[in-house]
Parts: sequence; structure tokens; C-alpha cells
Amino acid sequence: MSAPFVNRHIGPDNDQVATMLDRLGYASIDALMDAAVPKSIRSGEALDLPAAADEEAAAAELRALAAANVPGEPMIGLGYHATVTPAVIRRNVLEDPSWYTAYTPYQPEISQGRLEALINFQTMVSDLTGLTTAGSSLLDEGTAAAEAVALAFRANRKASGPFVVDADALPQTIDVVRTRAEGIGIEILVADLTEGLPEGEVSGVLIQYPGASGRIADIKPVIDAVHERGGLAVVAADLLALTLLEAPGTLGADVVVGSAQRFGVPLFYGGPHAGFISVREGLERQLPGRLVGVSVDAEGRPAYRLALQTREQHIRRDKATSNICTAQVLLAVTAGMYAVYHGPQGLKEIAADIHGLARRAAASLEAAGLEVVNDTFFDTLNVRVPGRSGAVVAAAREAGIHLRAVDGDTVGISFGESAGEATLAAVLGAFGVTEVSAEGDAGLPEDLERTTEFLTHPVFNTHHNETSMLRYLARLSNRDYALDRGMIPLGSCTMKLNATTEMEPISLAGFANLHPFVPAADADGYRQLIEQLEGWLAEVTGYDRVSIQPNAGAQGEFAGMLAIRNYHRANGQGQRDVCLIPSSAHGTNPASAVMVGMKVVVVKATDDGTVDLEDLRAKCEQYSETLAAIMVTYPSTHGVYEETITELCDIVHEHGGQVYVDGANFNALLGYAQPGKFGGDVSHLNLHKTFCIPHGGGGPGVGPVAVRAHLAPYLPTHPLHPDADRREGTGAISAAPFGSAGILPISWAYIRMMGAEGLTRATAVAVLSANYVAARLGEHFPVLYRGESGLVAHECILDLRGITAATGVSVDDVAKRLIDYGFHAPTMSFPVAGTLMVEPTESEDLTELDRFCDAMIAIKGEIDRVAAGEWDVDASPLHHAPHTARALVGEWDRAYSREVGVFPAGLAGAADKYWPPVARIDQAYGDRNLVCACPPMDAYAE
Amino acid sequence: MSAPFVNRHIGPDNDQVATMLDRLGYASIDALMDAAVPKSIRSGEALDLPAAADEEAAAAELRALAAANVPGEPMIGLGYHATVTPAVIRRNVLEDPSWYTAYTPYQPEISQGRLEALINFQTMVSDLTGLTTAGSSLLDEGTAAAEAVALAFRANRKASGPFVVDADALPQTIDVVRTRAEGIGIEILVADLTEGLPEGEVSGVLIQYPGASGRIADIKPVIDAVHERGGLAVVAADLLALTLLEAPGTLGADVVVGSAQRFGVPLFYGGPHAGFISVREGLERQLPGRLVGVSVDAEGRPAYRLALQTREQHIRRDKATSNICTAQVLLAVTAGMYAVYHGPQGLKEIAADIHGLARRAAASLEAAGLEVVNDTFFDTLNVRVPGRSGAVVAAAREAGIHLRAVDGDTVGISFGESAGEATLAAVLGAFGVTEVSAEGDAGLPEDLERTTEFLTHPVFNTHHNETSMLRYLARLSNRDYALDRGMIPLGSCTMKLNATTEMEPISLAGFANLHPFVPAADADGYRQLIEQLEGWLAEVTGYDRVSIQPNAGAQGEFAGMLAIRNYHRANGQGQRDVCLIPSSAHGTNPASAVMVGMKVVVVKATDDGTVDLEDLRAKCEQYSETLAAIMVTYPSTHGVYEETITELCDIVHEHGGQVYVDGANFNALLGYAQPGKFGGDVSHLNLHKTFCIPHGGGGPGVGPVAVRAHLAPYLPTHPLHPDADRREGTGAISAAPFGSAGILPISWAYIRMMGAEGLTRATAVAVLSANYVAARLGEHFPVLYRGESGLVAHECILDLRGITAATGVSVDDVAKRLIDYGFHAPTMSFPVAGTLMVEPTESEDLTELDRFCDAMIAIKGEIDRVAAGEWDVDASPLHHAPHTARALVGEWDRAYSREVGVFPAGLAGAADKYWPPVARIDQAYGDRNLVCACPPMDAYAE
Repeated sequence: MSAPFVNRHIGPDNDQVATMLDRLGYASIDALMDAAVPKSIRSGEALDLPAAADEEAAAAELRALAAANVPGEPMIGLGYHATVTPAVIRRNVLEDPSWYTAYTPYQPEISQGRLEALINFQTMVSDLTGLTTAGSSLLDEGTAAAEAVALAFRANRKASGPFVVDADALPQTIDVVRTRAEGIGIEILVADLTEGLPEGEVSGVLIQYPGASGRIADIKPVIDAVHERGGLAVVAADLLALTLLEAPGTLGADVVVGSAQRFGVPLFYGGPHAGFISVREGLERQLPGRLVGVSVDAEGRPAYRLALQTREQHIRRDKATSNICTAQVLLAVTAGMYAVYHGPQGLKEIAADIHGLARRAAASLEAAGLEVVNDTFFDTLNVRVPGRSGAVVAAAREAGIHLRAVDGDTVGISFGESAGEATLAAVLGAFGVTEVSAEGDAGLPEDLERTTEFLTHPVFNTHHNETSMLRYLARLSNRDYALDRGMIPLGSCTMKLNATTEMEPISLAGFANLHPFVPAADADGYRQLIEQLEGWLAEVTGYDRVSIQPNAGAQGEFAGMLAIRNYHRANGQGQRDVCLIPSSAHGTNPASAVMVGMKVVVVKATDDGTVDLEDLRAKCEQYSETLAAIMVTYPSTHGVYEETITELCDIVHEHGGQVYVDGANFNALLGYAQPGKFGGDVSHLNLHKTFCIPHGGGGPGVGPVAVRAHLAPYLPTHPLHPDADRREGTGAISAAPFGSAGILPISWAYIRMMGAEGLTRATAVAVLSANYVAARLGEHFPVLYRGESGLVAHECILDLRGITAATGVSVDDVAKRLIDYGFHAPTMSFPVAGTLMVEPTESEDLTELDRFCDAMIAIKGEIDRVAAGEWDVDASPLHHAPHTARALVGEWDRAYSREVGVFPAGLAGAADKYWPPVARIDQAYGDRNLVCACPPMDAYAE
Repeated sequence: MSAPFVNRHIGPDNDQVATMLDRLGYASIDALMDAAVPKSIRSGEALDLPAAADEEAAAAELRALAAANVPGEPMIGLGYHATVTPAVIRRNVLEDPSWYTAYTPYQPEISQGRLEALINFQTMVSDLTGLTTAGSSLLDEGTAAAEAVALAFRANRKASGPFVVDADALPQTIDVVRTRAEGIGIEILVADLTEGLPEGEVSGVLIQYPGASGRIADIKPVIDAVHERGGLAVVAADLLALTLLEAPGTLGADVVVGSAQRFGVPLFYGGPHAGFISVREGLERQLPGRLVGVSVDAEGRPAYRLALQTREQHIRRDKATSNICTAQVLLAVTAGMYAVYHGPQGLKEIAADIHGLARRAAASLEAAGLEVVNDTFFDTLNVRVPGRSGAVVAAAREAGIHLRAVDGDTVGISFGESAGEATLAAVLGAFGVTEVSAEGDAGLPEDLERTTEFLTHPVFNTHHNETSMLRYLARLSNRDYALDRGMIPLGSCTMKLNATTEMEPISLAGFANLHPFVPAADADGYRQLIEQLEGWLAEVTGYDRVSIQPNAGAQGEFAGMLAIRNYHRANGQGQRDVCLIPSSAHGTNPASAVMVGMKVVVVKATDDGTVDLEDLRAKCEQYSETLAAIMVTYPSTHGVYEETITELCDIVHEHGGQVYVDGANFNALLGYAQPGKFGGDVSHLNLHKTFCIPHGGGGPGVGPVAVRAHLAPYLPTHPLHPDADRREGTGAISAAPFGSAGILPISWAYIRMMGAEGLTRATAVAVLSANYVAARLGEHFPVLYRGESGLVAHECILDLRGITAATGVSVDDVAKRLIDYGFHAPTMSFPVAGTLMVEPTESEDLTELDRFCDAMIAIKGEIDRVAAGEWDVDASPLHHAPHTARALVGEWDRAYSREVGVFPAGLAGAADKYWPPVARIDQAYGDRNLVCACPPMDAYAE
């Protein structure tokens, strides 16, 4: 009976909407949207979605869906294992808005908490894998393996021959690697490595350690062999096994990848989890994804920030071999904190307990006359039961246990952290074995037992009691600025409300604890949820079919471009390999095109920032025979509804090309226009933007791909898809059939609670708010692009180039100064260098919008004082921003007062001020002196 | 398989324990405890408790217990109603350690967040009830009514005649009022008020508005009548109904009480909830419980703090008519935030929706020929179904709805916030009615419709979107210091870990949403949990029987003293009315004795602080015929294991007295000694101390009473107890049969996960830590009392009186200066004025203990500089503490540097500093200028 959810989600109430409309001179929100959105693309009809449910009803429906899944005891293995999320971490990270509503730490001064958490993760991965540098997480183990193969290809271009993949690698890893390798022209050879590396030239090898079968081969001979032939060795390893097994790095591996899922991250029916990657010295600059490093701040103290950012793939554009531009921060934080909480000894004990159960299971089975296929193992056994595997798996299922039917004669058993005596007895019972052995021979090859130390840093040896852990988590999150403190007006990132009712269901056992490869009947809740969500997304985008497999926006792009490529191939148009991309596009677009083997041709923009249709026509003529596609963002990355979009689509279609409409800015279209109806053949969405999945401090995300019917046959498949028809085809692009299934309830809840009307109003208020900000700030900063109506879409670009030229005050200065005013900066220098892009979203109410505008206007006042010569720019508060509390207690010989430094918006809110823990960070220093693991404690000595 | 919970709960690990033992010169923890705990009281055997379960197993057991309760749709009414806790409040208050681990706001400078939340609650109650001043919550509606009766008695001693109680009052309210009134000699007359006040003298009246039957009488004539006869009018009102009904204060009531449960507080099978009380002008100083007021800080800005503290009951000792010394802060915050989130209009809409369903139900039933007994109503209908009430209630139960069988012929229906169309149809269906009326006549008497405004303050009209609400909650909690920031070394308060695994279960629907008066079969999970918990508590205390009904420690004392009184009466020893209390006792002890009609006689202490046995013997002789009991705390409030306790018990028993052992300090005994075995007849425990229920910022708590077999017949009863044998007897002392049932899973989980060995080790480590602190700090401050072994128990008293006399530095100065060092102060001036009592508990690890000791020693260094004349005390950082960030930016003409002011422990932790939002608060100003509602916004203008 309480207020409709739409009134909770949308910030401005009716009075505030009226005030904003008044400021803009529109009589109604409809009038504004009529003026803003081109008629040519407007949807004719209201969206066909279920009527909005209230929060309690939606929560009840989700509980029912969760209850329709049967997690049982998940012992299927294949890279997904039962784990126990420590409750203190669940509550204070996964369920805590100060962690999950944070953005990617691009503004490091206000992100020190999660940066430290990520450097813990990196140190953990680096230590356990025995390699010098680990990234701050990848999407999953499958894509991490594919990234490693691409890395090996990049780093070692002189090598020739196929890239060999272990036949005992996880089946989904093999599939993902194949899909990814094909586009960039890497030949994959799957081979049984038990007899060593295949003959002939090889450019590299990927070894699974332990194997999917549970077997632990001595990987050193294969590593040595590949090195001898000039190739690189990639090892896909199990982090927990590495507490007992020697580190692959110590054995010579160049790259190690895997999943940190079993370090406390819920199974989530396959994701999101934190994939990991680490590399030996010399390969750091080849690392895909994000990397956290240590640098120094303006006060000379250690401070964390993202290192080597120019290395990132989306910046390489058409030189890229990867399009990854995100991480799984929230899950990497969880996994890292799991290691912090257990410490090296605790982890070893967990591993030893698991191994002990596997040993006793092997001994019991063998004592009963059954054959355990693998005589080496950590946690997984393959057991021969000729002709009976279905019966054994069914018997186990009756007992609430999910085992793996490897084939008709073999059953796989994988022990996880939740297993105990009762599990062991029940598993054996499914095989008809009633005698449980008290002991069993070790499954770890003696010469592979770990001798090297790990997790020796104090952070892994301090917080083992819950009080200390709680405070450590609180201390880190207190260092950070997230949506729980104030607005994050990041253009193109859509930092809107992540409502609690959307978030709570992901903790339900039925959603959180389900293994991705359980029988379809035991995942019926997810099936329903996914079918409904895919259907709703098809409806709102105007496409025919949606796949939620892509677990990031860039993955969605890749899936969409694969569909286009495969469609052309199927039509005998395999020569179509040119992808047109406007100059303003996000760098991920060209990277994605390259990844499917296309050539990028840039289309010019006109002076007003729109796509130059003359140039487009010329390019289409020029490449008429080879034109594969155009990738275009709508509204454009300039935040403008281009009037010419339908014409653009027509031109491309006339020349046989497909139209990819990047859905990054879909928050400006929802309810008003459908890309699938106004000319698009394929789009991806970002559920972590428009559909309320929180950014998690820099991941997870979901990037569904939506296609028209003719492209539907080319959507991603998965070798272990519950629907047999979806197992072969384009191939898998994520390790799990449904990608980051575990967070789909968030978007489902959003759509369910908003309904068609609510979603449409959200779009309108987002556009209204952006125009209100543009109107207020436009009097002080030039607004770079506007549509023909004079309106922007859902974001606006403030052009600081003139200011910078005249005064030396940079976008960086403004961004950092905003911290002193209590704000996260807007997007900096994208899509145009020297500008700030502001996207307020519909969730910020007028009070907060005005607080932000007031701050920006006050900063303009400060800039004016620099311009007037009152302050030298280097002596100005802009340059010294952000100001720490430490700075206040030292000598003060600044040209401005302490008060102007730290309380520029006045003293009224002083008691609630957010204090940045560090001063401005020197980015270059950190890149010159690369340190990507926890610094020693004495680095912090005063 | 993960680490045993005991290692998560206990802070110091084995190495740290060894270090501390070493410092103290003991070879082992056993040796220490052998020296510390008198042999005469040591338990012979290990506790008989189930073996410790790991966190996952305990959580699974609790999920199973929760699932054995059947909440259904709770429509029984009687003061407990279905409500929807907004998810944003559940997650960010009820499930957020920054709220639930906070202590009572006795240190207001570091409690501004919850103080503001409480003043919102007070303003809400004051507005809705139409009276000038509301307290910051009481335990429940029943005790609030009893407190109101006592208040009327106190405030109006010249009045004579019985206190009249509305026969249509809630049955449990009548019972609680009776139990409480008897001890202090107030005659209660239950009367049907439909015909007006009974003839003759009356000292006051308690009217239920609306009545338990749902009826809404015009209360004004009764109020006027009681005023005419010199009595006071107390109204027990429904807060939600008051959004539609005229405020009782406007109609002349002197006092209004009730429960704020239906403002978003889960049903919790009866509690904890926030009871409320408000009074008219002139009665403020009579208010029981806590009251938040506005004062000013040293910088001249408004600041909140507890007002009129000298008024509190435990300070009145043997002059008390109440022993209340706590509140239900966490629940009051929840209820207040519910009002903040919905605002006045939203609340009216919720009330109107509920009333609308009741109207349509009445119309439908009447249309079907059934008689609705009450022709006025808000949400509750009594329906006549001659001879069929059992059948109707059973039919409803089949449909998942709990109705009330008022008697054999009458069924009660109460609509709550979760009801909707489907509920209405199902309820009617249970009566055999299938036609649902679309409309129905209003049930509110026209002349009682509300005309006065409420919740006009901006705080109730701003945070109606979730983003704004989330930030408001985060802003407030960021102002506060709780266990998530650091140690709270409060002597006698046992601020130990509140583990997440203990906390999570209270959110389970089976525990959270159950109405206290459902049939026993639908509360089987609670039955099992309560039986087990009572059994375990009996085992650890050595008593025979436990009742968990008391919902605060003081309630436990009252229940225990009632048992003693009733036992004596039953034995024909009704003349025994003298209660001996040592001079060092907590003020609640004498208050509790007085409340059962006893006279307090003080027993002296010897110079070393122990009970003077000579004086005890003399008093026992003197009062041998009238001796009822002795109340003694063990270990003593001085934090010492007195060797003479068994002798003391013997002496009292010899004279026919009963021994009440106050269990406030049970954390020093658990596993080592059992009061029920070493001489006690009755004890209460504080589950919010020893058994991990968080303090919630100042409530809730649970105070079980434990008795030997001879006192068991005199434990609290309850008129609606599921066990018919427990309905009559001593009477109810809490509104619900099982008090604060909803938080019992916390203590259950603690015992279940610790086991006998873990609990025993916790005690030992608590004692070890206290002695370690005493040893380190004893070199700098005199430690006031020690046992014969030279050891303290679980806490130690630092005597600052010499320092104060010599330097002028007060305990207050030290307490406030600790804030600058990042600590909550120890207990101030209890049990000895001019001292600080430190209780570290077992949950703080050595790192934190040392950080605290270092801070105290550094403060001693500052005191030495004052003593040396280097600083005048008034110019010292001690006197100016705590230092705010604002102070740094103004003029600085202090005798010490800014750095010394705010970073006295050095700059290393500067980035993580907790900044007090206000400077030292002027307590006296606030009491002179009493403001106990939200101050106008312009109070904060700069």
C-alpha cells in the first residue's frame, strides 16, 4: 500500500519537476520530450510490460522464483565450487551500499578504500600464482583464459604455430577461447597433454592445473617444452589448490589465469565472479583489464590508483586484441577479503579439509571396488561406473547433491568448502558405497607440494577476528565516495539509484548458491526469470531476441559483432569485413570490431558533432562490396539525439551493411524510442547503467545483446547450456551460459516495479534533469553540443578548453576541486578532450542537482579569480585540490584560507564533510615506479 | 570447515594471549583464572551445552527454526500490526552495524546521528499525539502505560481514588499495569468507559484510543470528567490512526502512550518495538526513560544530547517509581525513519488505505447479514458469529490469515499495511462471504476527524525518494562512533562483538513477521528456540528455571524481585519487605526493590570496596523478621571478585532472606561460576551484554530472570501466553509473552557457536584483557579496586580524583579527549564519582587494547604538562576536546598546535580519523532551555 516505487526511484517530485520545466520554459514533460526526441524515432505505442508491482509484491515474486531453484550441495566442479561467504563480508561488502554503489576508481583520491581492497586481491593472486604482477580481476575464468591467449599472441608476435589448449581444460574455457581466438586469427589446437606437447611449432600452451577431470599433471615439463619452442605458457589454476600445490609461476608459467569464485564468492548460477590473471616480469604492460598500483600523493605519501591506464584496451581502439574495459571489483574485493579474513594458514586448512574429504572418498570408492580414474587430485575425482553414471547422478540428486555426469560411464565429484562428513557419506551412498574410510592416500603429487610462502603481508595476518575484519571493511569504505554520499554525475555511466528492494534478492540462497551446470529442472526459477527479463528487454528495445550471456558491455558488443559477422558468412558474404565507426565512438567499438576480424573505417563528424552523412555515403560507396556494419551510439556519445539516425541506418542497409546501435545511452531512449524499430539490427545494453545493477566500484555488469530475428541464430551458445539447442553455433563468449545470472534479479525487479509508465517517466526526468543542469551551467561554461531543438539528451558536455587555454585551470583541477565541495567528478575528457560530461540521471532530486550546480558555479568563480590574476593558477585552491585534513594542521602559506580550501561551500555542512584520505595523486610517478602489490607497512611511517 | 567461531569472536589470538599473560606473569590462562576467581565459587564441572556448531551450521539450524513459524497475514491486532519495513531502512539501519553496534548516546559529541534520529522520533510522537514533549521511547505499549500510571501518581500525589483503566484497553496492557501498580500501591479499577467514568474519586484514567475492540469512543468527555475530579488522563493511542483521528493532546489528554511498532518495525513475535510516551507542558520533568534535547556546543552551534538526565529513574534510587534506564533506540530510529520516508501525506495514505479495507469489510459483512459489533473503527472490526468464532478463525488460518477469536461468538479482524484486495476477499471468505463491497461507510466519528497538522518539519518532507533517504541515513551514521570504528571500553556494559551470523537470522521472515498471539502451533520455531535458550541460560547460571519475558535488565530485576516478594507472601511471610543493597549498587537495584513495595536498607562497603560483612550481619540481625532479600552484583560493580560472596549468601539465608545476584557482570563468570550454585536464589542476565545482543544505540535489550526451583512458580505470566498454565499468576511485566523474542536468535546463535569451551575461554580472555589494561594503565593511573590476588575481574576502575584535585583535569576532559584519539570513553563516574571504568571484553585484540592504552598514557602525558604548569587546564587540549574540523579553519590562538589538537596520536592514521561533528556540548544550557523536538532549519544558519 505504500508509495509506488517510481516515486522512490525518481528523485524529483512533481513540484521539483514543475520548477525545472519552468526554468526551461516547457509547459509539461511531454512538451519537453516532444521537443527533444526526433519524431522519426518516436515509438508509436506504449511498452507492453506487466503493470508495475509494488516493492513487497516484486520481492515476493522474486522469493518464489528463488525457491524454484534447487541449489543442493553443488559438487559438479568445472571451475565452480561450494564456498562459504563469511557473513561479515557478505553484510559489509556485498550488501553494503558504500561498496556496491561506488564507481570505477578513476578518481583515485576518493577511491582509496576499494583500491586497497583490490591491491589485496592482486597481492593474493600474485602470491598464490607465484608471478610478479596480477591484474585487478577479469570477467571470469573463460574470458581470462582467452585474454591470456591474446596476451601471449600480442607479447610474442614472432612465435608461430597453433596455440595448444589442454584437452583437460574446462569445456567452457575451451569454447570461449575458440570463439575469441578465431576473430584475431589464432589457431587453437586442443590436445591431450598427458603425453606432452604435440609435435611441431606451437605459439603457446594453456594448461589446466588441476585438470577438469581432477587430475594434477606435472606441468613443468610442458612449460619447459613450450618455452623451448619459443612459445608462452599459460596456466589456468585453482586458487585454493595453490595453497597446497606449488605455484605455476615457480614452475615457469608466464601467465596464470583462473577464477577467484571459491574464495567466498557465491556461485550465482555462474556469475558474477572475479576472474584473475597474473604475469611474469616483463609482461606487465601487456596485461588486459585494470591494474592497481601504488603512487604518491601531493603530500608525498603512498596512495593507490589505477596504473598504466594508457595500456587499456579501449584506448588501443583498432589496434586492440581485447575490448575489456571493466573488472569485477565487488567480487574481487570479496575474494580478497576472504583471504584477508582466513589468512594463509586458514586457507591451507580449508584446502586440506577439502582434500581430506576427496582422499577419503577415493579410498572408500576403491575399497568398494570402484575405479577412480585420476590417481592425482585435489578436490575432484572421476569415478568409473560403466553404464551407470546417470543412475549415480540421479541417486545423488535425490540426496540433495549435484554430481557431474562426465559421460555415460564416468561420474565427477568435486568437494567444496560446504562439504562435511554427511556430504561424504551421502555421495558415497549414491554410488552404493556404505563404508566410509577414515583415511585415504594423498592425491597431490609429492614433488608438486607447495614449498613457497604466500600471503606474508601483514594485511593477511591481522584481521582474523570478526571485530578487526568489520573495522577494516568500515575503514576502507569510509575512505570512499559512493552514491551513499552524494551525486556521481558521470556522463555515459548512468549512476542512478540501486534500490534496496532490487538488491536484496541476490542474497537469497536460491539465486546465490546455484551451480551453473545443475539440471535444467533444478534451475527453473532462473529459467523463468531469464526468459521474462530477455522478453522485457526485447520489448523495450524493439528487437526480436535477447541474450543475457554477455557479462559486460564490451562482451555485448563482441557478441553483437559476432552475430553480424556470422550472418554475413552464412549468407555467403564472408568478404564483408569493413566496420564503419564514427570518430566520436567509445574506443571499445573499434576494439570489438577488430576482435571479430573486421577492419575499422572511421566516419567523420560534422562541426556540430553529428555523424557526417556525406562522408558516410562516400564510405558506403567505397566499401559497398565489403561493408559489414556500422557501429553507432544513440543518443550519440555527445549526448545528443541526432535527427539523422534513421537516414544513417537506411544508407548502411542500402549497401548491405548491418547497423549496430550501441545502447550505452539507452537511458535516454527507454519508453520513447526502440533501436530495433528505428533501424538497428543489433544493440547491446548495459544493465549496470539503465537497469540499475550497481557499478560495484567497477564491476560487475551485464551487457545483454539484442537482435532482430535474422541475427538470432548467431547469438552466443554454450557447450553446457541447459537447452541442448543452444550448445553449438557461434560459441560461448562467457564462461557461464547465462553470464552474470546472479545479478539479473536486480534489473528484473527494476522493470517489474517501474512498469512501462514508470520507465518512460524515468527517461523523461533524466532528460529534464540534464537539460536543467545544462541551462544552469550553460551560463557559466559553454555546453558543447545540443540537438536541433537546443536541447541535450540525458547528459551534457561542458567545454573547459577555452578556460584551460586562458587560465591554465584544467579539467583535472575542476574535477579534484569538486571533491572539496563534496562531489564525484563528471566524466573527464570523454568523448572530447578538455571537457566534462555531466549525466545527472533521474534519481537525483532537485536539491542535489542544485547543490551540484552551485558547486560548479562557485568553482567558476574561483576560476574567474585566477583569470583576474588574483590567484596564480598553481597557488589556487583549484590546483591544490583536493584538500586533506592533514594539510590543515601543517604550515599554511597559501594564497587562500584554510576555510576556502576545505569548506568552500561554507560551514553549514562542515560536520558531514567527506574528507579525501589523500591529496592529489601523481599518476606519472606510479607508472614510472610500478608497484602493484601491497606496499610494506614502513611505507606509511611518518 | 572454516575457522571455529570462537576464534572469530575472541579478539586476541594465541600469540597475543601469550604476550598478555607474559606481561602479567602468569604461565597460562588457567593459572590466571585460578588466581582471579575465588575457589569457593568455582564450578566443579564443565557446562552441559551442545558442542559448538560452526557458523554455517548454526545459521542453517536457525533457518529451520524460522521456517517452523507460520507468520501468514497477521490480522489479530491487539497492538501488533502488519507493517512494511521499507527495504532501505531495513538494510541501512536494522542490518547496519554502524547503527546497531552503537552504545547509548551518553557521549553526545559522538552520537549526533542517532540523537537526531531520536529527536525525529520524539517530534513524530509529539506531533501525532498533540502533546509538547515526547520521550525517546519506552520498552513497549504495556510498560509505557504502566509508566504513565506511575507518572500520574508521581505528578499528582494529592489525587485520591483508584486509577481507572478502560475495559477496552489491550488485555496485556491491563495486566502489565496491574503488576506494576500493585507494588507502588496504586489501586487499579477496570471499567467500561462507554458509559463514562465510574462514580466517585478517581486519581486518573487510562483510555485506549481506538479500543482493543476497534471501537473509537469520543474520549473528550472522559478526559474532561477526570480532570474535573482532579485526576490525570492517559490515552493509549494508535499512532497510525492518529493520522486520521484528532490528537489526544488536542482533546485534553495529559499523557499519551502506545507502540510505534506499526511504523515499519517488524512484528518480531512481540518485540522489540518502540513504546512511546508524550506529555503535556508541565510534565516534562516527570517523563520516565530517556529524552533527547537540543543544546549548544562550545562553538555555539546547536547540538543534541540526552536532556534532564538527573531525572532518570535509576538515579532516584529508593525514591523511584520506575526503574527504567533504557530505551528501544534502534526501533525508535526505525519508526522515526518510517515517518521521514513516508512523510505526513504518505502516512495518511497508508492509514486511509487500511481504513478503506476495514470499511469495505464492514460493508461486505453487513450486506451478508453479519453483525459488526463496533460501529466506529479505524482498522479493527469485531464481528458477531454466534458459536462460530473458532470455525471462522480456523477457516482464515487455512487461507494463511491469522484472525482473533475474541470469544466463542466474536471474531476480531485488524487490517495492516500488508493487506490488499486478496486479503480482503480471503478474510470475507473465512466468514462465508463472497460478495466484496466496493465501498463502505466511514468508521471514524466525524467530529473526531483530524484537523490539526503534523510532521510539518522539513525532515519529514524531504527524504521521500530512496536516494535521499539512503544518504540521510548514511550521513547520520557517519556522525556516530560505534563498534565498527573502534573499541568502546565501557565498564559494566560489555561492548563485545555482535557477530553477523548472530544478526542475520533476525531478518528471516519466520522470526521477523510473526504476530505474538498466533496459535502455539504456528510459533513452534520460537517455542523450540526459547525452550533451548532458557535451558542453556539455566545451565550457565546454575539456576533451575529461566524466563526471557523481561525485555530489559531492569525488567529482569523487577521480575526477580516480584518472585521474591510473591514467594514470601505465599509462605505467609508477607511482612518481609526489607531489601538490603550495598552502597556501591547500581541505582536500578533500589528502584526495582521499591517497585515491588520493599524498603531499601543500605549495607556499607569496607575501604577496599567490598561489602562490609560486619555491617551486613548487623543489618540482618536488625531486620531478621522483615528481611526479604539482598541485591548484590557479582563480580561487584567495582569489578572485583569478592571472596566473601558465599559467606554473604549464607548470612542472608540464615535470616530468611533471599539472595538476588545481579548478573550485569556475568561476562566475568560464565563457565567459571554459577550464581545459582554459589548462593543466589535469583539473578537476571543482560543478553545485550554477555550474550551479544547489540546495544542498538541504546536498546533493545533482553533481561532474562533466572531462579531456583522454589521461586519458579512466581515467574512472570501473561494473559495471552500460548501455554494456558502460564496465563495467570505473578502477572505480565512485558506486553508480549516472550518480551523481545525477535532478538533471541542472536544469543541463541552465540551460545550455539561458542559451546561450553568457547564461552569459558571468552570469560578468561575478558578477564585477561582487563588485567592487561589494568597492568599497563596502573603505572599511570591508580587502579581503584583489586581482588585479594591483586587481580581485577573483567573491568577496572581508574581513579582520576587525585589528578582532578591536583590539576583540574576532570574525567569529562579525559573522556572527551579520548575522542580526539579515536575512542569512545570508558564509563564515567560509575560506580565511583571521579573515576573511569574500563571493560575491554574478550573481543578486542591486543592491537586495539594497546592502541587504547597508548592513548590513555598519552593523555596522562598531557595531564602531566598541565600539572607542570606548561598548559593552563582551561587552555589545554584536554579542556578543548573534542576538536572539530571546523575549529581548525578559524583563528588559532591556542597554547598547542592544530596537530596536537586533532591528531594527538600522530599523523599515521590521519586519513581514517573519526571527526566529531560537534565540539563539547553544554549540558546545563540544554536543561535550562528545554527543546526536545526538531529545531527549525534556521537554527543551523551560519
